[in-house]
Amino acid sequence: MLSLVTSNEHKYKEISTYLNSKNLEINWLQRKYEEIQADDNDTISLDSSKKLANKINAPFFLEDTGLYITNLAGFPGPYSSYVQSTIGNENILKMASGSKAYFKTVITLCWKKNFYQFSGTLNGKISSAISGNLGFGYDPIFIPDNSNKTMGEMTTVEKNKISHRFIALEKLYLFIVENRIKNNL
Amino acid sequence: MLSLVTSNEHKYKEISTYLNSKNLEINWLQRKYEEIQADDNDTISLDSSKKLANKINAPFFLEDTGLYITNLAGFPGPYSSYVQSTIGNENILKMASGSKAYFKTVITLCWKKNFYQFSGTLNGKISSAISGNLGFGYDPIFIPDNSNKTMGEMTTVEKNKISHRFIALEKLYLFIVENRIKNNL
Repeated sequence: MLSLVTSNEHKYKEISTYLNSKNLEINWLQRKYEEIQADDNDTISLDSSKKLANKINAPFFLEDTGLYITNLAGFPGPYSSYVQSTIGNENILKMASGSKAYFKTVITLCWKKNFYQFSGTLNGKISSAISGNLGFGYDPIFIPDNSNKTMGEMTTVEKNKISHRFIALEKLYLFIVENRIKNNL
Repeated sequence: MLSLVTSNEHKYKEISTYLNSKNLEINWLQRKYEEIQADDNDTISLDSSKKLANKINAPFFLEDTGLYITNLAGFPGPYSSYVQSTIGNENILKMASGSKAYFKTVITLCWKKNFYQFSGTLNGKISSAISGNLGFGYDPIFIPDNSNKTMGEMTTVEKNKISHRFIALEKLYLFIVENRIKNNL
């Protein structure tokens, strides 16, 4: 069976609910590992996967999401969780209200010692105020293109239609189906 | 001879000038290595040193400095260089003018496969405006305790008397002298 490696229960629940709905069961695997510093999540995720591949003898994947703000040279990018837990959304508004921004999710799949990456992006801008209490993290200050609501004002169903995380997950799912891996999971 | 591992020429010059004045010559060694993510510089520096110790067959040390802002839960801490090059000093002022803060330097010395850490801190606060064009990085927005000038308004001589970096360097130097390592360098 395919495993998702994460220490974040929220992440596991969201992702497993989605994949289960497509008839793909996944395991939850908690493993501690060190992430390197780099300018983008792709590099970090691939490095982490390679380290984990030495310890895990079954197919697994990692998921990582970052917010990249144009007027702040891509900040907070790969450090999105750290920045959320230190300076928080109010300070992001002080610095970057109105700036273009995008969310990017990177999934790295390790399958028989090979590594495959799938990404999903969502373009939008930083709002002028915190709005909405749905979602989590930067959702209440991010307005996707072609929307007049923040992600924090969207239901899960609305969000899943456009979100970076679900685009990346859909690519992972299609890869598994196309490569007939599914029967072996 | 003792080597300083860094890709930052400015850092090498500042540190070697100081140690040379104490009659301790050092080499400049440029090595690429990956830094892990962690909440403090001590952990990152020790991890990097252990990785480098597998590749370098001579005594070496690393130096790393971070700014920890109290009102921002220690941000930017270990990500100080990244944050300086993305959001910069003006945005730090928007978020944290008047907040307590401290600089911390960590030096890790690798000597015969043992690791020794030396740190230096400097307490102060974030200024209300950018001031001074001496120094670099966060110097123009940091006012040390018992001072009415930012570090950016201080000469090198003034700065060296109180700075976190020189406190840590002085500890490194004393350790080398006390342990009679100097004659073997």
